[in-house]
Amino acid sequence: MRPSNRTPNQLRTVEIIRHYTKHAEGSVLVKYGDTHVLCTASVDEKVPGFLRGKNQGWVTAEYGMLPRSTGSRMDREAAKGKQSGRTQEIQRLIGRSLRAIIDLEKLGERSIQIDCDVIQADGGTRTASITGAYVALHDAVSLLLEKGLIKESPLKDAVAAISVGTYKGTPVLDLDYIEDSDCDTDMNVVMTGSGGFVEIQGTAEGDPFSREAMNQMLDLAQSGISELIQKQKAALSS
Amino acid sequence: MRPSNRTPNQLRTVEIIRHYTKHAEGSVLVKYGDTHVLCTASVDEKVPGFLRGKNQGWVTAEYGMLPRSTGSRMDREAAKGKQSGRTQEIQRLIGRSLRAIIDLEKLGERSIQIDCDVIQADGGTRTASITGAYVALHDAVSLLLEKGLIKESPLKDAVAAISVGTYKGTPVLDLDYIEDSDCDTDMNVVMTGSGGFVEIQGTAEGDPFSREAMNQMLDLAQSGISELIQKQKAALSS
Amino acid sequence: MRPSNRTPNQLRTVEIIRHYTKHAEGSVLVKYGDTHVLCTASVDEKVPGFLRGKNQGWVTAEYGMLPRSTGSRMDREAAKGKQSGRTQEIQRLIGRSLRAIIDLEKLGERSIQIDCDVIQADGGTRTASITGAYVALHDAVSLLLEKGLIKESPLKDAVAAISVGTYKGTPVLDLDYIEDSDCDTDMNVVMTGSGGFVEIQGTAEGDPFSREAMNQMLDLAQSGISELIQKQKAALSS
Amino acid sequence: MRPSNRTPNQLRTVEIIRHYTKHAEGSVLVKYGDTHVLCTASVDEKVPGFLRGKNQGWVTAEYGMLPRSTGSRMDREAAKGKQSGRTQEIQRLIGRSLRAIIDLEKLGERSIQIDCDVIQADGGTRTASITGAYVALHDAVSLLLEKGLIKESPLKDAVAAISVGTYKGTPVLDLDYIEDSDCDTDMNVVMTGSGGFVEIQGTAEGDPFSREAMNQMLDLAQSGISELIQKQKAALSS
Amino acid sequence: MRPSNRTPNQLRTVEIIRHYTKHAEGSVLVKYGDTHVLCTASVDEKVPGFLRGKNQGWVTAEYGMLPRSTGSRMDREAAKGKQSGRTQEIQRLIGRSLRAIIDLEKLGERSIQIDCDVIQADGGTRTASITGAYVALHDAVSLLLEKGLIKESPLKDAVAAISVGTYKGTPVLDLDYIEDSDCDTDMNVVMTGSGGFVEIQGTAEGDPFSREAMNQMLDLAQSGISELIQKQKAALSS
Amino acid sequence: MRPSNRTPNQLRTVEIIRHYTKHAEGSVLVKYGDTHVLCTASVDEKVPGFLRGKNQGWVTAEYGMLPRSTGSRMDREAAKGKQSGRTQEIQRLIGRSLRAIIDLEKLGERSIQIDCDVIQADGGTRTASITGAYVALHDAVSLLLEKGLIKESPLKDAVAAISVGTYKGTPVLDLDYIEDSDCDTDMNVVMTGSGGFVEIQGTAEGDPFSREAMNQMLDLAQSGISELIQKQKAALSS
Repeated sequence: MRPSNRTPNQLRTVEIIRHYTKHAEGSVLVKYGDTHVLCTASVDEKVPGFLRGKNQGWVTAEYGMLPRSTGSRMDREAAKGKQSGRTQEIQRLIGRSLRAIIDLEKLGERSIQIDCDVIQADGGTRTASITGAYVALHDAVSLLLEKGLIKESPLKDAVAAISVGTYKGTPVLDLDYIEDSDCDTDMNVVMTGSGGFVEIQGTAEGDPFSREAMNQMLDLAQSGISELIQKQKAALSS
Repeated sequence: MRPSNRTPNQLRTVEIIRHYTKHAEGSVLVKYGDTHVLCTASVDEKVPGFLRGKNQGWVTAEYGMLPRSTGSRMDREAAKGKQSGRTQEIQRLIGRSLRAIIDLEKLGERSIQIDCDVIQADGGTRTASITGAYVALHDAVSLLLEKGLIKESPLKDAVAAISVGTYKGTPVLDLDYIEDSDCDTDMNVVMTGSGGFVEIQGTAEGDPFSREAMNQMLDLAQSGISELIQKQKAALSS
Repeated sequence: MRPSNRTPNQLRTVEIIRHYTKHAEGSVLVKYGDTHVLCTASVDEKVPGFLRGKNQGWVTAEYGMLPRSTGSRMDREAAKGKQSGRTQEIQRLIGRSLRAIIDLEKLGERSIQIDCDVIQADGGTRTASITGAYVALHDAVSLLLEKGLIKESPLKDAVAAISVGTYKGTPVLDLDYIEDSDCDTDMNVVMTGSGGFVEIQGTAEGDPFSREAMNQMLDLAQSGISELIQKQKAALSS
Repeated sequence: MRPSNRTPNQLRTVEIIRHYTKHAEGSVLVKYGDTHVLCTASVDEKVPGFLRGKNQGWVTAEYGMLPRSTGSRMDREAAKGKQSGRTQEIQRLIGRSLRAIIDLEKLGERSIQIDCDVIQADGGTRTASITGAYVALHDAVSLLLEKGLIKESPLKDAVAAISVGTYKGTPVLDLDYIEDSDCDTDMNVVMTGSGGFVEIQGTAEGDPFSREAMNQMLDLAQSGISELIQKQKAALSS
Repeated sequence: MRPSNRTPNQLRTVEIIRHYTKHAEGSVLVKYGDTHVLCTASVDEKVPGFLRGKNQGWVTAEYGMLPRSTGSRMDREAAKGKQSGRTQEIQRLIGRSLRAIIDLEKLGERSIQIDCDVIQADGGTRTASITGAYVALHDAVSLLLEKGLIKESPLKDAVAAISVGTYKGTPVLDLDYIEDSDCDTDMNVVMTGSGGFVEIQGTAEGDPFSREAMNQMLDLAQSGISELIQKQKAALSS
Repeated sequence: MRPSNRTPNQLRTVEIIRHYTKHAEGSVLVKYGDTHVLCTASVDEKVPGFLRGKNQGWVTAEYGMLPRSTGSRMDREAAKGKQSGRTQEIQRLIGRSLRAIIDLEKLGERSIQIDCDVIQADGGTRTASITGAYVALHDAVSLLLEKGLIKESPLKDAVAAISVGTYKGTPVLDLDYIEDSDCDTDMNVVMTGSGGFVEIQGTAEGDPFSREAMNQMLDLAQSGISELIQKQKAALSS
């Protein structure tokens, strides 16, 4: 039995709220249960130095947690003067995931900067960030189309992410914080709307895991992501 | 005429939402119109080194803006590796303002860390932060009383803050971003529930200001803060 | 009775020594009693990036304290690798105060960098810095005029600063370190030669202060600054 | 055809040279073809603060590349003043991989610090690091046993790592730099001597990958790692 | 002919002014011509961690230049967030030079921190710093003796420093900035009152130098330092 | 008797291995006994900003020690976020030494970046670095000549370095770590192939040293460096 009484293949309640703040070209509050992340997409009409003059755009991401988004307060990274290894790992993952589904040449010489800021954390902040960031990115792209700055959408597919793991011997979908703290294996899976894998990051927290366990976890992930892709579509069409 | 059609002595719509996130001992979303700040109060059962063994507690504050809380994206301070002078100035102001109304000896050897994070900015983020932080601090103190960790409330008074300024020659209350960008004088005023001044910070942005102008601005501030103190009371009694 | 035996409205002995060091375009040692600050003005024939091509100049300031300018040695900020919040707050204040009395367009596309370095501290270093920096700025401007680099002085007025406070219940002018450590209210006031306010920063160190107390402090500040403006004039005409 | 003329399931020439430098408790130069990494294990008779008094040890890792280990010189991280996100990601991976096969309680209250420094890079530095670091860790543990500091080996299993990917449509084992720069999918796999998975990190560099492709890559990885485990054994018994 | 009209073996006018600022246990303004350095000695009744419990004291030094002590303004190291290699080199040299003439065991478990801050620079700031720092150290030690905190002076000898070099083919003593910018060899020599060498740092700026040239330079240095030692004695006995 | 049984004027076994790694334009492993340093020379077809357009090239150096190159592990400078004063002092010394023997105008507008990374340390890492770096620089220059990028070699001479010191009262050549930790005087000498001095840095670690002792040490250094220059020639002609 899961602490949250969910069945092994059950997502937490997912909400995707668009236009959450007023300034950003895309602004989405995504909730996976008690995990709430604000994802904004900011358009900048230039590209980083290494891409200048190459007729292509760029998408990148930054991630942060509010100091008291967690059970006990974490030090503020701005005050410590550096981002942790975990933060950098997550923001690199978000950036790669989004770049996997966008045609950077069609974007033109401009950047879209994604910011994922965790307002409240209960496990799965990186997967929620990716799922929400896609919707924010979509909104920013729609605005570019609307303004005539680009002619054709550079988005090739949707992308969403979910965690899977082995909790007390059973493969489960979408781990919350209690499960995450006590699981044997923790795997984050990023997939496209058409079912291709973009990223798989699996870690044995306790004992090593078998290929069979991995296959069961991937089955769960595929079904979970297909639900998330539906939620994204619903949010974008509302 | 003010761009927002407010009268010179009219506050923006103020909302104070308690228990906005679930982990912090105090968690308040404060809104001054389109300026939205999440203020959390985190209790820590120890004090900084310089106070150890002195039979008193500590209250301190940190402040941050989400990168896209503003019209154009600001660099993330955690990524730049340092907090700006403005950020430090504001967090020092918030900390001093709260310490002015708390009896640190009655708090006992523990710290309350305030975090003010701007979700959306439209002028007046520092004043909204102080007004919201007081409510979060009050909630954290109530929890300490409830748990029997302290016997008596260390809070001596309430505290709230508002900006005043001279916009196109007229003294006005609670400047929003448009007014702030174009005002001659900008003054932030922090006062207690019983009407004492805690901080006054006035800056001539254009021409120097006269003593008479300052008196008019202080009149506005006094009336504005007395409204804010009522809003805090209402929020705390709901 | 004040520890220094001064009357409540009495400044410390003020000295303004020009041409204190030989390299800078303006170099002034200012003394407010035992507080000694070296203020230099350095002309640089370019402007910061954000002003390039805008047909205007820039004036900015940095502040520092020698490690043993104080009663007990402070850590050297260069060795710690960062400037404290207090340092940044002060240097921002000095910069704003000087920009309030200079016409940046008349200055032309060049910068004047002010450095205020505290050689010996006994309270009031930020106010002495502003008063001395004005004279250094004036000397640098005179040199630009002399060399024919500008035709007309960009200085619109003089500027000086003083602290006032409430010490043991009495409003007093120009607090020294002993008074500053034990006062109820501490207020720094920056005014122009023609009597306008540029900055007012008042902080209740102990109990909140009343509007009446503030008025008494401002009266003291106005008289003190008018003396300081005379000292600046005398120094500049010698 | 692979640029190196290897067959798809063929490792590069692997060499594991023990006692490469004289000071460290374990010191191993590992070569995967032209990728050469020096892995040292340093025993420290204390644990980090967060583990003090918990009757357990710690194993952690740091990673670095010599500035000219690569085709064009990279900036020295010590001179830039920070480690890149990539560096931190890799050193976290190495640390987790080694902690997966050591019983930290049996290690006692001491730390083993692994340093992996890339002398020459040609793709696969992180996987070579893990494979070499295990041997260095084993040597350090043997020394602790020899000295009687621990009674029983805390090592539960061996661990090794290899990359797999899809190069021009074909799944291949152990990508070198040329293949890595031009592959569609890049997956790093960490496994134990007994065949359990410790880490799987797969990234679609171009198009998303299918579950079938992943299965083929995992087959290759399993066979490659079983060869590497043999090489580790041979090195340790020589 | 030297630009300053000095003879090859002539020092600039040297002044050593004690008690220059009021807070430090030793405070000396040293002038080598237009090079002016404020040297303070601060006593701290503890030692750095690596010396705790070893029954000995410590002497260390820090060095800085005011931003406009030089012909063109240098960036403030505190604002840049790091000390330059040159600064670190110099402060290490000053510390070693002073430790060479003090018996750290006789000093007892306390530290003396030397700060050398360049008010005005015209070449030779590091040598002036050492010469002035010795006098400040002596004053601080005298105060410890006077207060009965130590029974016996830990000072074993005096120490002073001077530069020598080859300017337009002629060996010269005590290079000023113009000579320093255009010399072939630059050598800093630190010697004790009894004529022993503490440090010799010679650098060929242009062509390599011969052993004969070095001998000529050392002759000059020996005579210059013996003059400086007399100046220190005179200052200390006044 | 020296701990290593060497005679006072005997170098350790010196080896200079060229083409040690494959990417760099010059790559040399230099061994002074158990001190092993990898020196690479990287050509970059541009110059630093301060030299742009001046028709000259630049040679600079960086230095680092692998964390466990030493008897007890040192913190990694990249992880600490700054290079120590010692590191900066050494890399500045290496750079100056190489610039002394190269004609920067003949090099053309390009830079050669030297990296000296200590693989294993046993005293004398800075002197070994200089001796090895010269050979790496020579190889890089030969490549530029070979490619026709320069017509004439910019190298004016060879350069090598050795330490000398007074160990238990006897002047000795090429101190190893045991001697270095227990010597009275430590002097590093850098000389050209034609016997000129480039740098002399002598430090009294215990008692000050006499001019006579210095002369004895310089005699040893001259003979040692002449051997090293032969080894460099032999390596370059092999």
